[in-house]
Amino acid sequence: MNDRKEKSGQRMRLVYDAVVEGIARREWKPGDKLPSVRIQSERLKVHRLTVLKAYRKLKDEGIIEVKYKSGYFVCRVPAAVPTPGAGIPDDRLHWDYGVHKSTVNRNRAMEFQSQSVEYQMSKALIDPKLLPNRYLSNHVRQVFDIYPKVLSTYSDVMGDLELREAMAGYFLQKHGIVAGADEMMVTTGAQQAIDLVSRSLVKPGDTVLIETPTYGPAIELFRQQNAKLIPIPISQEGYDLDRVEQIMNRHRPRLFYVNPTFHNPTGFTVPSPQRKRLVELAESYQCILVEDDINHDIYFECVPPPPLFFYDTEGYVVYIRSFSKYVAPGLRVAFLTARPPVMNCLVPMKALTDHGSPLLGQKIFQHYFFSDRLQAHIAKLRTALQLRKEKMEAQLAGTGWQWASPKGGLNLWIRLPEEITAESLLERCLNRSVAFLPGAICDPLGLLNNRIRLSYSFINEPQLEEGIKRLIAAADTLKGIDNTRGT
Amino acid sequence: MNDRKEKSGQRMRLVYDAVVEGIARREWKPGDKLPSVRIQSERLKVHRLTVLKAYRKLKDEGIIEVKYKSGYFVCRVPAAVPTPGAGIPDDRLHWDYGVHKSTVNRNRAMEFQSQSVEYQMSKALIDPKLLPNRYLSNHVRQVFDIYPKVLSTYSDVMGDLELREAMAGYFLQKHGIVAGADEMMVTTGAQQAIDLVSRSLVKPGDTVLIETPTYGPAIELFRQQNAKLIPIPISQEGYDLDRVEQIMNRHRPRLFYVNPTFHNPTGFTVPSPQRKRLVELAESYQCILVEDDINHDIYFECVPPPPLFFYDTEGYVVYIRSFSKYVAPGLRVAFLTARPPVMNCLVPMKALTDHGSPLLGQKIFQHYFFSDRLQAHIAKLRTALQLRKEKMEAQLAGTGWQWASPKGGLNLWIRLPEEITAESLLERCLNRSVAFLPGAICDPLGLLNNRIRLSYSFINEPQLEEGIKRLIAAADTLKGIDNTRGT
Repeated sequence: MNDRKEKSGQRMRLVYDAVVEGIARREWKPGDKLPSVRIQSERLKVHRLTVLKAYRKLKDEGIIEVKYKSGYFVCRVPAAVPTPGAGIPDDRLHWDYGVHKSTVNRNRAMEFQSQSVEYQMSKALIDPKLLPNRYLSNHVRQVFDIYPKVLSTYSDVMGDLELREAMAGYFLQKHGIVAGADEMMVTTGAQQAIDLVSRSLVKPGDTVLIETPTYGPAIELFRQQNAKLIPIPISQEGYDLDRVEQIMNRHRPRLFYVNPTFHNPTGFTVPSPQRKRLVELAESYQCILVEDDINHDIYFECVPPPPLFFYDTEGYVVYIRSFSKYVAPGLRVAFLTARPPVMNCLVPMKALTDHGSPLLGQKIFQHYFFSDRLQAHIAKLRTALQLRKEKMEAQLAGTGWQWASPKGGLNLWIRLPEEITAESLLERCLNRSVAFLPGAICDPLGLLNNRIRLSYSFINEPQLEEGIKRLIAAADTLKGIDNTRGT
Repeated sequence: MNDRKEKSGQRMRLVYDAVVEGIARREWKPGDKLPSVRIQSERLKVHRLTVLKAYRKLKDEGIIEVKYKSGYFVCRVPAAVPTPGAGIPDDRLHWDYGVHKSTVNRNRAMEFQSQSVEYQMSKALIDPKLLPNRYLSNHVRQVFDIYPKVLSTYSDVMGDLELREAMAGYFLQKHGIVAGADEMMVTTGAQQAIDLVSRSLVKPGDTVLIETPTYGPAIELFRQQNAKLIPIPISQEGYDLDRVEQIMNRHRPRLFYVNPTFHNPTGFTVPSPQRKRLVELAESYQCILVEDDINHDIYFECVPPPPLFFYDTEGYVVYIRSFSKYVAPGLRVAFLTARPPVMNCLVPMKALTDHGSPLLGQKIFQHYFFSDRLQAHIAKLRTALQLRKEKMEAQLAGTGWQWASPKGGLNLWIRLPEEITAESLLERCLNRSVAFLPGAICDPLGLLNNRIRLSYSFINEPQLEEGIKRLIAAADTLKGIDNTRGT
């Protein structure tokens, strides 16, 4: 009996997964009608009652909806995602294409991130006061002495050769990565690197694997290319690689966008053995791994394992290493490393995009980054961030909210009690001049609506204390009254 | 009889134009079969002999080819355009999508532009020695005194507010343009602005009007979006606006990319009355004018007319004003001005692209650009460039080559004698360490293969003298022996 029940549960899950993956791949878009219970049962070879159960569960979760006498439809407004269309100006002109519709939603994240709230915990950025400003300025003077014509000169499309050579040396020494300057490109932040990869390597209809949760703008960039997205859950242990292999085998994805080191938003780090096996899978199934590595040096206990790129022998990893956040955000310097077959696809796109990042920032970065002083500074920065993290965690300890304490990075990824949704909490927080990132923005399905990302990196300790106090107070007002959406 | 002959000529032209426009719109791609003479004659309601004549002319011009017993086909290799596929690495992986195929060709332009030839006349860039480097460096120091945290701070997505406000003031005072800081975005060069416009406003299948000749990378950007391109010839008098109106009426283009002031590559400036009428047409036919203005301050005789944006009352002009070339190439600062309905489409794309240009460059630009010293410098720069231009023209005077002497900008646009193609000349020039831009790169159809663009801005006078001497010598070797292609 128990066995039968379990099997029935498995079958129900099969239907459930088929729909969720179909929505992720955009086989069914918001508002689309799903196959009827009869057709779905024939297609998936399960009992109609099983389909019905799965559809009910999907409905209860706010993923699909029933229309009387019409059937089942994908919800237009997934649970915690802001209303589509908000932000599009009412205008007689049809400006409404170009940027993917869903961008407009994500764009709300941008909006409230730029809102000047007092207790800003939605930005995974580093407090400018933690960066050595005075020292940086002095360094800049030296740059002008060494390169008097730096402001009058264009960079190469791939970036300044001297800088790329220096970084190649750093990667070799630090990670054992052997890559030449011609396998390295300077980009305007990791953001531009992801954009270049997406535009150069993904064509419409390609399947792209993406972590859930993940960095919201990456979801948007792959959607812009009309890729079919399949979400891959990331946990403290990393990925379920058997499942990843099944998916690679079945869907032959073009690429898998990963952030395996102090992952944004969770802070998880994928362990070494998994890194090795993931790269082997990528090579077997010819799936490019796009490794976004933005927090590599922000560790609190021990140095993280080497990048995926280190394990790659066949050229299937594109390694994006940004120093923008913790070295000098005003310069926006990041590096994309890839083997020639991939790099040769990216360079013409970089040329079309901006013809090369500005030279001045590159030259300043070079002379600053490779100084002992900067390396010493990063050590101090780690300590300062760890203190802020611990402060935030101590204050949240009494709430009963759940999170895995991160061993690096800039954020706590918090599961709220069931009765509180991120959206309703955010609304009350913004009224209190407090901001955080709602989890739905990090999810390709727009779910995860009782998760929030709290960044401890942008505001100082007294501000953190007050911000968290207000956050908890806001949550208290929702207790017990918010088990339905939209209250 | 003469009248009949003229009418027959007109009908032939009709067929000819239909094919050329079809190719430009990518209705027929390289290698595609054209409609048979019979079908074409029925479709266009002309005599078969007329179609035959037009097809012969197209064949003679190397645009189409005849295959025995198969019919007429669009040439795979248009006259002077380099062989497609050159530069794509031979690899077992199918990296061959992403960047549009034709980009690989244009990319050859990039390649030989980056080749270190001694006499570089293919780059429309300004000799770094003409820019006030020492003065710039001193200014930078002041910036750090005023904004000690500039390196630790992100810019807004739209760009630094202070800078945008200052530029809004400048546009008002200089051109009578009334635009707020919220209608202005800072981009990494004009290149990025065109890219943003293309990605945000053009969807696949949209019709885009583009000047011929024009800026090669713009052709590529619109092709990336799978736009149908219709070339609009530009002459010393501007455009044939009656024809533009016909095309707007028939094809309802999404936008028209124009460079009306010291046009690249020709140097032409569209006169005021045409500007006014073009804007009216754009408003009538809801066609956005994307105005690329990169040489506005590089005039030799008189100040050019105000930008198209000045004449616009309905929000149909996107104004891209770059100072990158002549103020500080190492900073790559350009401005995109647009009214809110368009701007609201561009901002989310800018966020996805790079989340805002680096702040440091913007702050340096602001404090430098609005200084009296810089404005005085630009006046000197104009004189220096004019001298170089006159030097180049004097030396070319004896060749019999044709060009319209430009009243501003950085280039001569030269028509070679019929027997010399740009490609064959370029080959011989590169052997002599001389580079220029072959005209085909500036043409959406890849024709104009006896035109070349010579930039007088990048190398100094003695170098120009030697470079032109070598160019003429190379051309002499081709005289009389190069009336077929590929010798």
